[in-house]
Amino acid sequence: MGTKNNGLSIFALGGINEIGKNMYVVQYADEIIIIDCGAKFPDESLLGIDLIIPDLTYLVENKEKIKAMIVTHGHEDHIGGIPYFLKKLNVPIYATKFTLGLIELKLTEHKLLRETELKSIDDQSRIQFDEMSLSFFKTSHSIPDCLGIVFHTPEGNVVHTGDFKFDLTPVNNQYSDIHKMAEIGQQGVLLLLSESTNAERSGSTPTERRVGDHIDEAFMKAKRKVIISTFASNVNRVQQVVSAALKTNRKLALLGRSMVNVIDVAIKRGYLQVPEGMLIEPHQINALPPEQVAILCTGSQGEPLAALARLSTSSFRGVEILPEDTVILAASPIPGNERNVSRIIDNLFQLGAHVIYGSGSSTGMHVSGHGYQEDLKLMLTLMKPTYFIPIHGEFRMLHHHRQLAESVGVRKNHTFIINNGDVVDIENKEARQTRKIPSGNTYVDGIGVGDVGEIVLRDRKQLSEDGMIVIVLTISKSERKMISRPDTISRGFVYARDSEDLLRKVNHLVEKNVNDLLAEDIHQWNVLKQNIKKSLGQYLFEKTKRKPMILPIIIEV
Amino acid sequence: MGTKNNGLSIFALGGINEIGKNMYVVQYADEIIIIDCGAKFPDESLLGIDLIIPDLTYLVENKEKIKAMIVTHGHEDHIGGIPYFLKKLNVPIYATKFTLGLIELKLTEHKLLRETELKSIDDQSRIQFDEMSLSFFKTSHSIPDCLGIVFHTPEGNVVHTGDFKFDLTPVNNQYSDIHKMAEIGQQGVLLLLSESTNAERSGSTPTERRVGDHIDEAFMKAKRKVIISTFASNVNRVQQVVSAALKTNRKLALLGRSMVNVIDVAIKRGYLQVPEGMLIEPHQINALPPEQVAILCTGSQGEPLAALARLSTSSFRGVEILPEDTVILAASPIPGNERNVSRIIDNLFQLGAHVIYGSGSSTGMHVSGHGYQEDLKLMLTLMKPTYFIPIHGEFRMLHHHRQLAESVGVRKNHTFIINNGDVVDIENKEARQTRKIPSGNTYVDGIGVGDVGEIVLRDRKQLSEDGMIVIVLTISKSERKMISRPDTISRGFVYARDSEDLLRKVNHLVEKNVNDLLAEDIHQWNVLKQNIKKSLGQYLFEKTKRKPMILPIIIEV
Repeated sequence: MGTKNNGLSIFALGGINEIGKNMYVVQYADEIIIIDCGAKFPDESLLGIDLIIPDLTYLVENKEKIKAMIVTHGHEDHIGGIPYFLKKLNVPIYATKFTLGLIELKLTEHKLLRETELKSIDDQSRIQFDEMSLSFFKTSHSIPDCLGIVFHTPEGNVVHTGDFKFDLTPVNNQYSDIHKMAEIGQQGVLLLLSESTNAERSGSTPTERRVGDHIDEAFMKAKRKVIISTFASNVNRVQQVVSAALKTNRKLALLGRSMVNVIDVAIKRGYLQVPEGMLIEPHQINALPPEQVAILCTGSQGEPLAALARLSTSSFRGVEILPEDTVILAASPIPGNERNVSRIIDNLFQLGAHVIYGSGSSTGMHVSGHGYQEDLKLMLTLMKPTYFIPIHGEFRMLHHHRQLAESVGVRKNHTFIINNGDVVDIENKEARQTRKIPSGNTYVDGIGVGDVGEIVLRDRKQLSEDGMIVIVLTISKSERKMISRPDTISRGFVYARDSEDLLRKVNHLVEKNVNDLLAEDIHQWNVLKQNIKKSLGQYLFEKTKRKPMILPIIIEV
Repeated sequence: MGTKNNGLSIFALGGINEIGKNMYVVQYADEIIIIDCGAKFPDESLLGIDLIIPDLTYLVENKEKIKAMIVTHGHEDHIGGIPYFLKKLNVPIYATKFTLGLIELKLTEHKLLRETELKSIDDQSRIQFDEMSLSFFKTSHSIPDCLGIVFHTPEGNVVHTGDFKFDLTPVNNQYSDIHKMAEIGQQGVLLLLSESTNAERSGSTPTERRVGDHIDEAFMKAKRKVIISTFASNVNRVQQVVSAALKTNRKLALLGRSMVNVIDVAIKRGYLQVPEGMLIEPHQINALPPEQVAILCTGSQGEPLAALARLSTSSFRGVEILPEDTVILAASPIPGNERNVSRIIDNLFQLGAHVIYGSGSSTGMHVSGHGYQEDLKLMLTLMKPTYFIPIHGEFRMLHHHRQLAESVGVRKNHTFIINNGDVVDIENKEARQTRKIPSGNTYVDGIGVGDVGEIVLRDRKQLSEDGMIVIVLTISKSERKMISRPDTISRGFVYARDSEDLLRKVNHLVEKNVNDLLAEDIHQWNVLKQNIKKSLGQYLFEKTKRKPMILPIIIEV
């Protein structure tokens, strides 16, 4: 693999050909700066896995070169891997005040807060390292206080956009600093890394204010309680909920741990304005007339243990959804969550609630935080990069982003569609992609990080589909014969009670099989086990069309 | 439960509060007519389950009363359960010629074709049973030859719509017989059962011809091979593919078993017109210039083993997708299939193909076969029912459908939102919902039907998440002590090789635990096993935050 010791190198350890676990690296000579350290949630094929984080092999091997991690914003796919990273590598983390607040929540939970060096920056900061210096620019996104980064290197300037859209009528002060972007572009950008999430969608991302208008309308029409669920970190949307509650004379209760925690950070650090006396505790809800109450809760993605799911099944202690209450889902389901969200909506309708959901123009309870094609083209136009690497997206998104770049003048072979681990080296303003460093998925399962791999997952898959049969044979060492009938135990295969006949036949088959082999003087236990697995596997598949895991155990006495 | 012996009863055994396994029953006195017998695909929580079919308990208990099953159309959620039904109940099946063709394919596969009585009907048929007589009307849907049913009963007429939309410019002859529907409404409809799939979507369903226009356009622009994937059963869409291939002078190859089988049925029974000599075999593809070839294939839902998935990973023997080929996904992903479909699109872009997908107005490669709100209102208006039961949908859809019914004049308490198993009884034109019959999900796993239930699934879930540990103890009967150290085998829990230390400690713990108990003269094996499960479970959760299944096995010698 070979570590280069001169020139500029750029690569991703996560975030390419996937949505999630974003981690990018800019290295100049012996100086490494990391951008973000995200996590990704596993799909259903990764049985029992809790979280996926980037493979950190390269960074561990080059740890003395790492100067800093810059975190662009506080979403899970940008900060979720930080605790696991810090258990291996002690690196100062730079981020804005709000982002640091969310990182601190995470580090407190993992008992890592005290030993970590956290440095607060803003869009006016300038950080000088040995080889590179960094400056920043403000962007709009679905969470406050996002930054894009400029790496000033001896080879030229590298820009990383972070996640962004252009919102010209932002809520609070979350504007896109177009003037500064224009200036950066004017100074010359050697290479741009820009996010690609919505590169397939034409037009411009609607403004967050549109959601606010719809929330206002729903609050005004509501005759009884209003329950609204959204991402806790979307503080600007929360601000609009606060404002709608204020306009309709409602007190606001917060349900769900992350909602309480994040709003606490947002208020304390000045990102959310809530009038004194507006917030009430959940136990106060029932004391007020329903038309004077709004509830802001977690669970907009259908998470089975979050507040909204529990409310929808009337299993949230002390708070009930009653007929004629209004429930608003101010979020679109992330792909993979549709079924859980639908189930909750069904349950809410069953309770007699008036349910408002969907991002279509008529309801309009969600807008994306990621730029559509016109936003992406505007960023490319402002930056005028010589080279371009589309990041943060699956392949089709990167592909469309390349086409957008070409449409606004990036030269045809100057876009690099890379994979995680592919390195783009730039020397004398000439970019080339030739080498690879280790990259991949590291699975977190319980306390274990990286201790579950393909074999364990393959076993889990087989066990999950057809269960297993354990067969215990007790064989006399001296006499070379079974001293009792085999013991058979099955789990996850068939109902033992309904299948006594089948399991009895299994016993007979194994007994005969083993006795025959022993009679032939075959007594290498491995051969016996292989034989049992094969003959029993065939028999069971024929009878049931299932392939349970077969575990023969031989006890010698 | 009590079987009623007079009056009219209507209920669902599947299809309510779900999409899938449709099965409805109309009973008058001692005469039962079944409508459809569908299957449903399991979600990821039903580990290892292949298919879900309705609970047939009520029908088996009343089998001498069943006169017929009428099948409205040939989609899986209406015919998928038929082979399993026929293994328990021998009932004549009535359906149109095309629907019968698809049922015959299924029965041939299950070796049930010879013993089943299949009766061909069309929209002009009239079937007279002892108490009821049946007539039919044509509807438009995404498969040919669909019927709605009118049950003429002594209490009045009951109408079941089947699946439908209104398409005023249908492909082939698949029109909605609005005149006949008007006539039926004019004669008086006591009760309407109407499908609710798209009751949340405003407006009218676009015509199938819109897809044809987009297919034509894509074929004309294509410079090399065209590969198009859609549902085999959507014969009218296939007809439009044939027509686009004809206009652009392309031969057409079919890939995928179900595509070949269904198109064979469609051609032979006169539902699809393909010019002589247009169809070629897959092995002939490479002999022709790419601009003279189109390929129609299965796999539009991302099925991992279907033709499109294999083409997208260059693993379809003898057929390759090359740069500049055009690939069209003429279908929207059904909820739950999005990730698999996205992965295929990514792979196709990686191969350099021009990929056209999505149902948005700009690409427009799919329209629904189910009526939107305006279609549903038109049906309700034509039928003018006294009572209404929204069917075929999840709760929120039924809820919206009720609102639509009220908006066009169905009286407020005359809509019954039922669940599977709820019976609506009508006597003297008065409908009431008071009783329930058995209903639920029957799981098909391999050959087994109904032999996998909650316990097996719960075991599979535990095994899938954290695997298992088998611990074998060999205990001397006479001496009441272990005669060797415990044997430990784990699967799906941790990498055995990386976790030798942990597994050694497990052994020690169990050994000490058992010796202590034996020393206390405790030797009921159940007590020993419970003790091991408890202490080892706690130890492992503490060390790993995982909860593997623990299976202690005691061998007495």
